[in-house]
Amino acid sequence: MAAANLISLTTDFGLVDGFVGVLKGVILSINPQAQCVDITHEIPPQNIEQGAWVLSNSLAYFPPAAIHLCIVDPGVGSKRRALAIRVGETVLIGPDNGVLSPAVQMLEKVRGVEAQAFQLDKPRFCLPRVSTTFHGRDIFSPCAAHISRGVPLEEVGSPAGEWINLALPRPLRREDGALVGHVIHIDRYGNVVTDIDQQTIQSLSGRPLEVHIGGRSIPGLVSTYSDVEPGEFAALVGSPWKLEIARRNGNAAQALGLSIGDQVIVTPR
Amino acid sequence: MAAANLISLTTDFGLVDGFVGVLKGVILSINPQAQCVDITHEIPPQNIEQGAWVLSNSLAYFPPAAIHLCIVDPGVGSKRRALAIRVGETVLIGPDNGVLSPAVQMLEKVRGVEAQAFQLDKPRFCLPRVSTTFHGRDIFSPCAAHISRGVPLEEVGSPAGEWINLALPRPLRREDGALVGHVIHIDRYGNVVTDIDQQTIQSLSGRPLEVHIGGRSIPGLVSTYSDVEPGEFAALVGSPWKLEIARRNGNAAQALGLSIGDQVIVTPR
Amino acid sequence: MAAANLISLTTDFGLVDGFVGVLKGVILSINPQAQCVDITHEIPPQNIEQGAWVLSNSLAYFPPAAIHLCIVDPGVGSKRRALAIRVGETVLIGPDNGVLSPAVQMLEKVRGVEAQAFQLDKPRFCLPRVSTTFHGRDIFSPCAAHISRGVPLEEVGSPAGEWINLALPRPLRREDGALVGHVIHIDRYGNVVTDIDQQTIQSLSGRPLEVHIGGRSIPGLVSTYSDVEPGEFAALVGSPWKLEIARRNGNAAQALGLSIGDQVIVTPR
Repeated sequence: MAAANLISLTTDFGLVDGFVGVLKGVILSINPQAQCVDITHEIPPQNIEQGAWVLSNSLAYFPPAAIHLCIVDPGVGSKRRALAIRVGETVLIGPDNGVLSPAVQMLEKVRGVEAQAFQLDKPRFCLPRVSTTFHGRDIFSPCAAHISRGVPLEEVGSPAGEWINLALPRPLRREDGALVGHVIHIDRYGNVVTDIDQQTIQSLSGRPLEVHIGGRSIPGLVSTYSDVEPGEFAALVGSPWKLEIARRNGNAAQALGLSIGDQVIVTPR
Repeated sequence: MAAANLISLTTDFGLVDGFVGVLKGVILSINPQAQCVDITHEIPPQNIEQGAWVLSNSLAYFPPAAIHLCIVDPGVGSKRRALAIRVGETVLIGPDNGVLSPAVQMLEKVRGVEAQAFQLDKPRFCLPRVSTTFHGRDIFSPCAAHISRGVPLEEVGSPAGEWINLALPRPLRREDGALVGHVIHIDRYGNVVTDIDQQTIQSLSGRPLEVHIGGRSIPGLVSTYSDVEPGEFAALVGSPWKLEIARRNGNAAQALGLSIGDQVIVTPR
Repeated sequence: MAAANLISLTTDFGLVDGFVGVLKGVILSINPQAQCVDITHEIPPQNIEQGAWVLSNSLAYFPPAAIHLCIVDPGVGSKRRALAIRVGETVLIGPDNGVLSPAVQMLEKVRGVEAQAFQLDKPRFCLPRVSTTFHGRDIFSPCAAHISRGVPLEEVGSPAGEWINLALPRPLRREDGALVGHVIHIDRYGNVVTDIDQQTIQSLSGRPLEVHIGGRSIPGLVSTYSDVEPGEFAALVGSPWKLEIARRNGNAAQALGLSIGDQVIVTPR
């Protein structure tokens, strides 16, 4: 495998304590040519689902020959495995707790290749002193740096067989002509992203639709935020290519009192 | 135009959702040599004035041959235009809503050149699939990356004529020997930056001055924070080269209950 | 001294105002090859102790040939000196208020070399216009950039003799077989880091221990978080290699009502 200097970082480490700077120090100590790009470090502490969502929603916009480090790791120091998963030219690195799995599935589908996992169990690619509580620093970062220099996964780790897939709690379903989905992400602006994707919505959209959420019915779909008046709610296909509820010049999630997991129902109008 | 690998980023995207990582992924997919520098991503959502202020206050400290992406874009997906504005060697990229205009004016003045605007309307320099809600990812970033590789603005866009200038709400005025200005920024430390600049203050400063703000009168000007006792208020020319009110070892904005737009009056003592 | 392009940044500037972007703009204007790595910019405003702690806890993970800029500077504009301190191949840059001193001591010990300080007092290595309130921009960054290009410290500054050492407020002590320490850091997860280091704990650990903190007694030491049940408290040696109190899947600092400086007592069980 050729060297790939680009390493993205997705963690729940926050930006206060210096954890992220330390990851980059470790990486640059091993590969001074590495180029670290932060996806986010503000995944809510130990929230594997949100880490998985942000990662899988971002990767398609990076060059294929890149390494993606994703560390949301409540089981650090336990027997959970440390993995590197190769999907074509791309390598994903993180704990075996499901956080990588939606991104792996997405890449397998988009690239038409099959993923292969390796367990990062070779001390010579880790820091000399491995703590029980910060494998991001002691295992994941040094292994990522060695891989970015071109060391093959076969050398950095051992074949890992199956890995843990994140169980999506409630699948999308259709009921009496209605489509029932859930809130999967709420962004900084209070836009409410659901698990109903563009293809599914388009399969219904011969007719005008109505979106029921948080006790409201919102006519849809509009094309962008400014298609509604300031203060009004809009139902549209947002940038993650999924049904999204927004409020023009406002915060939809707050106004509707919504949280991740809440139900959304789409019906004909 | 020669390639300019340095691309600064100023947005209201926040650091939680991965939006910024995606911008960089898009840029590095097109120009692997690009060097992205964050100015800030914590502009309050959709606050064009604060975005404009931070950008125009920062640019003079960057190399002239740089590209500055500034995305505070409540009108995304509407008919507002996407612009690239060239001022000498510098290129500013963002929505045509005024957010770029104070920086353009500043650069025109400092460099003695005239700005020229181009509309980013060529699909071949955008991502293949353009959403209606995230032009940062789909239009602004890919165009910036192509420009950073040396593609001329004339090719990436079409001549755009005039652009929108941010209306500064209340101009500075003089009244009966007093100078009336306004709070334009409050920084992390609670320092209160006003729109009264160093030259104007110096034109008065033969005599000792008094600064009236938030119901208080503060003798001025001192030279730095530590010229007053801990807990005391200081009126001084701060790092943006404007009249600033600070509280030593404290937060002046909170203590005085100040917000952006509040009035400040300077009189002889 | 050879060029060292890696410059780390530790400040209390926050990420909202654009201060950090300006530092990088200044650095890249002088040394376009510089590679800036953020350690953190979220040191609580003017908290020299926390800045010193994060810096000294991070540096060992960076390459030796690096420059570390650390700006927590309540005395900016006063007579406090601006320093660059050389410890072997490493250069630390910041105000002479103690913020650099624990990192300097750590590096001297680890590398077995003696530190040498220089005062950054040469206007030709600073920006042409030096404010009284933002020496990060006007003095520290440009000097760091010149040093990163290989200009010797002897040229960028003047010999500075002694520097200020941070007085650690309450030293560790032993009382009647008990070990008395203090909380020195609380991280994003609410993990409580103390000033009792691994060596000291190991000198006691022939016997089972008990850790008394915040009105609770926690049996110790366990090896990692998941050695206790969810919701339970764990006493362990954490990643800074010091005694740490955590709560599995929770926030120990909040649950125990702890702040920096609070006492921790370790006794035999």
